[in-house]
Amino acid sequence: MLVLRKGIYAIVDLDACATAGLDPQRTAAAFLEAPLAALQLRAKQADDRSLLRLARALAPLCRAAGVPFVVNDRIDLARLAAADGAHVGQDDLPPREARALLGPDALLGLSTHSTAQVEAAVDEPVDYLGFGPVFATRTKTRADPVVGLEGLRRAAAATRHPLVAIGGIGLDDLPAVRAAGAYAAALVAALLEGGDPRRRIHEAVERFGAG
Amino acid sequence: MLVLRKGIYAIVDLDACATAGLDPQRTAAAFLEAPLAALQLRAKQADDRSLLRLARALAPLCRAAGVPFVVNDRIDLARLAAADGAHVGQDDLPPREARALLGPDALLGLSTHSTAQVEAAVDEPVDYLGFGPVFATRTKTRADPVVGLEGLRRAAAATRHPLVAIGGIGLDDLPAVRAAGAYAAALVAALLEGGDPRRRIHEAVERFGAG
Repeated sequence: MLVLRKGIYAIVDLDACATAGLDPQRTAAAFLEAPLAALQLRAKQADDRSLLRLARALAPLCRAAGVPFVVNDRIDLARLAAADGAHVGQDDLPPREARALLGPDALLGLSTHSTAQVEAAVDEPVDYLGFGPVFATRTKTRADPVVGLEGLRRAAAATRHPLVAIGGIGLDDLPAVRAAGAYAAALVAALLEGGDPRRRIHEAVERFGAG
Repeated sequence: MLVLRKGIYAIVDLDACATAGLDPQRTAAAFLEAPLAALQLRAKQADDRSLLRLARALAPLCRAAGVPFVVNDRIDLARLAAADGAHVGQDDLPPREARALLGPDALLGLSTHSTAQVEAAVDEPVDYLGFGPVFATRTKTRADPVVGLEGLRRAAAATRHPLVAIGGIGLDDLPAVRAAGAYAAALVAALLEGGDPRRRIHEAVERFGAG
């Protein structure tokens, strides 16, 4: 079974890539040059055929790099692309349903946005919990209230699940995010700044720190 | 294996129900009092959990009525709700992929919008083709060009698949739609007019005519 590793959980978000003028597949390939906790494909607008095509292009790249490949929201696409797993939010398919479709060996994550949600997820069949937004974020239009580093610390103390901190995290924030108990840090826009994802991902991995 | 019957293919569209001020589940129950070709659940905006909940409420109602229950677009939800099948569009998962996830016995439909698309679908593993819009429609924001009754006639002559005519069809149009070669007629907004779906569905079934 694939396990989530500590480190940077890189999200290839199609809208964020479009805004930054970057090709998603090349961006993913650049991310995969660094040792990642996981790589997630996220798209709120794309049609299913384009998304499946892209997911199928990324899956072998991730496999070759030894990085778990996770599809956001869509269990059917995760399966068809032979991804390693999927990530669901509080309004998406419940983890038990997602697990039933994905099978026991898939990597499954659930977004949480408060200590109460983290505690409610204690018996969910998930491998990790997303937790955030840690800081104010620009890549989500309807974001939940910011939890902050203190909220992250409380949530990490409240659960046995590894926490993937997410939301508005910049490269400078990574040491503090890790110190607050994050097992991994999810980065979206911060990896695209400056238009050089290769350089940014290496910087991020370095700043989060090793094992 | 469930087969699509001739007659009215009733679509419960969450947006159309909201516009008409009608509860989707009650509307579906009203539709199911008439002998239908199929009942489809369609929602472009709803979150996955609400949609799964509704699909799971409709599936046993359809089963009890002996009417095939089809979920639009989403193969994962169709499976989790134990629906009889799914319907995909030209930008959704390709029929082969949908079939792989649904299994050989599921009812699977594909939307087509031109004779060329109908012809291209000849070897697709589908049970029927949606075809339209036959007339101008208000329930789709980005509609394809109107095919008209003449287009329907040509398409019906060009394929071995049963055609479900769709798009702006009113109750008065049903005899002409059937005469043009439609195996079934999909109705959305026309079934909600006047706020009495029970009365409208019986009228529609009667106007389309028996076997």
